[in-house]
Amino acid sequence: MRTVDNRNRIVLGSGSPRRKELLEQIGVEFDICRAEGEETITSEDPVEAVKELALQKAQEVSGICSGRIVIGADTVVASDGRILGKPKDREDALRMLRMLQGKTHQVITGVAVILEDKKKTVNFAEVTKVYVCPMTEEQIERYVDTGEPMDKAGAYGIQGRFAAYVSGIEGDYNNVVGLPVARLYQELLAEGTDLLCPADRRERSKEQ
Amino acid sequence: MRTVDNRNRIVLGSGSPRRKELLEQIGVEFDICRAEGEETITSEDPVEAVKELALQKAQEVSGICSGRIVIGADTVVASDGRILGKPKDREDALRMLRMLQGKTHQVITGVAVILEDKKKTVNFAEVTKVYVCPMTEEQIERYVDTGEPMDKAGAYGIQGRFAAYVSGIEGDYNNVVGLPVARLYQELLAEGTDLLCPADRRERSKEQ
Repeated sequence: MRTVDNRNRIVLGSGSPRRKELLEQIGVEFDICRAEGEETITSEDPVEAVKELALQKAQEVSGICSGRIVIGADTVVASDGRILGKPKDREDALRMLRMLQGKTHQVITGVAVILEDKKKTVNFAEVTKVYVCPMTEEQIERYVDTGEPMDKAGAYGIQGRFAAYVSGIEGDYNNVVGLPVARLYQELLAEGTDLLCPADRRERSKEQ
Repeated sequence: MRTVDNRNRIVLGSGSPRRKELLEQIGVEFDICRAEGEETITSEDPVEAVKELALQKAQEVSGICSGRIVIGADTVVASDGRILGKPKDREDALRMLRMLQGKTHQVITGVAVILEDKKKTVNFAEVTKVYVCPMTEEQIERYVDTGEPMDKAGAYGIQGRFAAYVSGIEGDYNNVVGLPVARLYQELLAEGTDLLCPADRRERSKEQ
């Protein structure tokens, strides 16, 4: 059963604990309503695919939480033209990490925001390049044994133990974690919506 | 009074809660022994200055914890040829943030590791470029009012609310937080020291 607390005007349409933490980190007040429907990808381009998946999630949740600002997101890892989602099992995680070690890959997060009061949708994808150090088979197995890879696109968590193997990135770090909060905040600002300004304060400042 | 628990072979010579979290994040077991002496900079080059400060911290702590691996570190922000440390007061924080908004600056962390058993010292500096979005005076004041800037070089915490204003970086994110754990881990690996392998396990594997 899904319950939606009507306190906040912003709704995160994702069950990811990392996205929740990122929105909290920058100081956004929001409720969570997880999208549960099956998403369908029609594009083979990873950028277009994640934008589409994010939009489908946001639209599903927006159907339940009308009149609110709904944020949907989806993250994939792209390496050598292949898209990596979450690993199916231990073998799949090992396979992905062997593919990623010693080179640069891309992490792409699609974001969709439905601004119902403004009958408008903001939909974009943010790309971050990530360089992974060369890893031995022992290091890969030791990392998989931590259990960290299993619920993460590309089989790693940059904000966890995998940090020992990421020597650098180019772009937004939080995009790799799962939500490009800077671009999200800035894109909505450009639309006249300040995520860091709670609705009640906004109303009060209008009255003054 | 400084007390040093003799359980671990690795000692972090820094009182920074963020450096502690980063070492814990990658799975290093260590003790903390904070350097308390006065450091002296003899170089005007920020890269040389932070290397020197890190080395002084590591040497001070190494004098207390002999026979162990001691890590020292120091972080500064460099913008337009000026070095920014921690802000003195609210006005100083506002001044630094006005200087950093709307452009790219560099965060430099110097690291020194004294490998006493090997009579060797590893000393390097890691540089990360950080791009800060344009900020209004209201956004700068609102951010300073969160209290976050006061104990941080450059008056911001990338791992806190300031994430809303950092659109991208080039290099190691954790270097901006305060410790380039990937480079630290890799540099010590090259010296034959695996930080992720506790001493007892290392001893056991030698016996096999």
